[in-house]
Amino acid sequence: MTTPIAVITRLEGSDERQWMEALAAVLPEERLVLFRDMTEAQRQQAEVAVVANPDPADVAALPNLAWIHSLWAGVERLVAELGPSLPIVRLVDPEMSRVMAEAVLAWTLYLHRDMPAYARQQQARVWRPLPYRRPRSLTVGLLGLGALGTAAAGRLMDAGYTVRGWSRSPKELAGAETLSGDAGRAATLAASDVVICLLPLTAATRGLINKDRLALMKPMSSLINFGRGPLVVTSDLIAALDAGHLSYAVLDVFDQEPLPPDSPLWAHPGITVLPHVSAPTDRQTAAAIVAANIRAWRASGRIHAAVDRTRGY
Amino acid sequence: MTTPIAVITRLEGSDERQWMEALAAVLPEERLVLFRDMTEAQRQQAEVAVVANPDPADVAALPNLAWIHSLWAGVERLVAELGPSLPIVRLVDPEMSRVMAEAVLAWTLYLHRDMPAYARQQQARVWRPLPYRRPRSLTVGLLGLGALGTAAAGRLMDAGYTVRGWSRSPKELAGAETLSGDAGRAATLAASDVVICLLPLTAATRGLINKDRLALMKPMSSLINFGRGPLVVTSDLIAALDAGHLSYAVLDVFDQEPLPPDSPLWAHPGITVLPHVSAPTDRQTAAAIVAANIRAWRASGRIHAAVDRTRGY
Repeated sequence: MTTPIAVITRLEGSDERQWMEALAAVLPEERLVLFRDMTEAQRQQAEVAVVANPDPADVAALPNLAWIHSLWAGVERLVAELGPSLPIVRLVDPEMSRVMAEAVLAWTLYLHRDMPAYARQQQARVWRPLPYRRPRSLTVGLLGLGALGTAAAGRLMDAGYTVRGWSRSPKELAGAETLSGDAGRAATLAASDVVICLLPLTAATRGLINKDRLALMKPMSSLINFGRGPLVVTSDLIAALDAGHLSYAVLDVFDQEPLPPDSPLWAHPGITVLPHVSAPTDRQTAAAIVAANIRAWRASGRIHAAVDRTRGY
Repeated sequence: MTTPIAVITRLEGSDERQWMEALAAVLPEERLVLFRDMTEAQRQQAEVAVVANPDPADVAALPNLAWIHSLWAGVERLVAELGPSLPIVRLVDPEMSRVMAEAVLAWTLYLHRDMPAYARQQQARVWRPLPYRRPRSLTVGLLGLGALGTAAAGRLMDAGYTVRGWSRSPKELAGAETLSGDAGRAATLAASDVVICLLPLTAATRGLINKDRLALMKPMSSLINFGRGPLVVTSDLIAALDAGHLSYAVLDVFDQEPLPPDSPLWAHPGITVLPHVSAPTDRQTAAAIVAANIRAWRASGRIHAAVDRTRGY
């Protein structure tokens, strides 16, 4: 009999239940037990935990844990809250990359085809065609070239945009100019008509898009943040928009989620607020990936590529 | 010395001037003369006219005309106003098809990724993620499979949508189910989550999207009209939206353009009004196509595929 697998979440009830069903469907050979339902014996045995926004105390209450699998791609909270020795495997799901790339394309087209300006004109009953810009004439700069950024870059290049990519460590991307390092980031910000932020949240990226970095951006360019809220200093972003330096921002992630009702972001005419929907996890495809990683570990004892705790992702 | 080429437009001054410059740049060997600047001798000689919204009386004042080249793709007014014997060549520009396909994709993504609903929620400061729908689960129905519809279908299929196409006469489209005839149109309307209208305006299509056809559409589906305004009966569309049968409409073309300030369309919460910008003519690529057609006629005496006056396009 194999050891039980702990499932630790602080999700809403129906969400948690649907995850349990999705995981059970693809791991019929495993005993999946919600942490709060585990016996003391099971807690002593569990070698692997599947987690979504877990209480760190619950993770600490499993003394035999060899590794944990996050159901989320972003693991900044786990990295901060859990001891450094526990391997964390984060979700890398090609379907999530596809959905994110689709969102990046959708909102780039939203900006490229002047949807915010036409909505304003409609409200004012103004009929004024704006000059069409060929996609090649627009430079889209991607900050972050992981699985999500790479998929987004491909989709943008297919659509004809001029794509530039920046990543912490040097990376190649066929068809796009890629840069790294501080000077490379400054050059990417200065060249881009649309900057798309897909960075992980780490000590090095928290507050990255601040007053100084926004000042580096091209006048009348736009920002799309689909990474994590704290990558952007909200008050600095609002100031850059109000000063007319930036033309628009599409934000899907925030310092606090749900975004509090009194946030000035809701009513800002130059900002689209989205409720963290750029790339929702697909339970079916995610559960299948978790199952494959757990089976590989059962068979070989090898843990799937874990998060680099010093990098933070 | 070849005969002069008449240019007849009722465009605004700067627009007309830019067309003259673009045409002159690609046809250095021709004498291009604006109709109002032509001598009586030139009017007697001219064998070809390049036109954009011409006064029919001006066209009739050229007795030696062998054919005319429209700078526009839609020629419903020329067909109605000019005698039936004069061959009309309309603009078919691959770059215009690309821009139209891009607009179709952009506004399909706008609907697919729930941008209207998220904008409403933002106004109400409501944080509510809506379920993500895979593109395959959405059926996009194209009415009209000419150069524009075919390009749009390809772009939509590349993006993963389930595409259905309808055209007057049977047409094949790899990867999409295509239908024709009245029953085929009804089936296309009934199956589609998004209906995209790219038909030419003819006696047979005027008022096509009326009460009865809207009733055939799937409940909570959406309409995009990028063809011509009179294809859709505006009051019937508003009624279908107000009744909650349709969820949204994106309109780029109208019975009267510019859309009059007192139109109810401007302020309707379920309608996006665009100022005829889905696929603006690109002067450079269009002028090059006109030049190629004129040169081929000078060389061979053969007129490029002209509009079928009984079909109307």
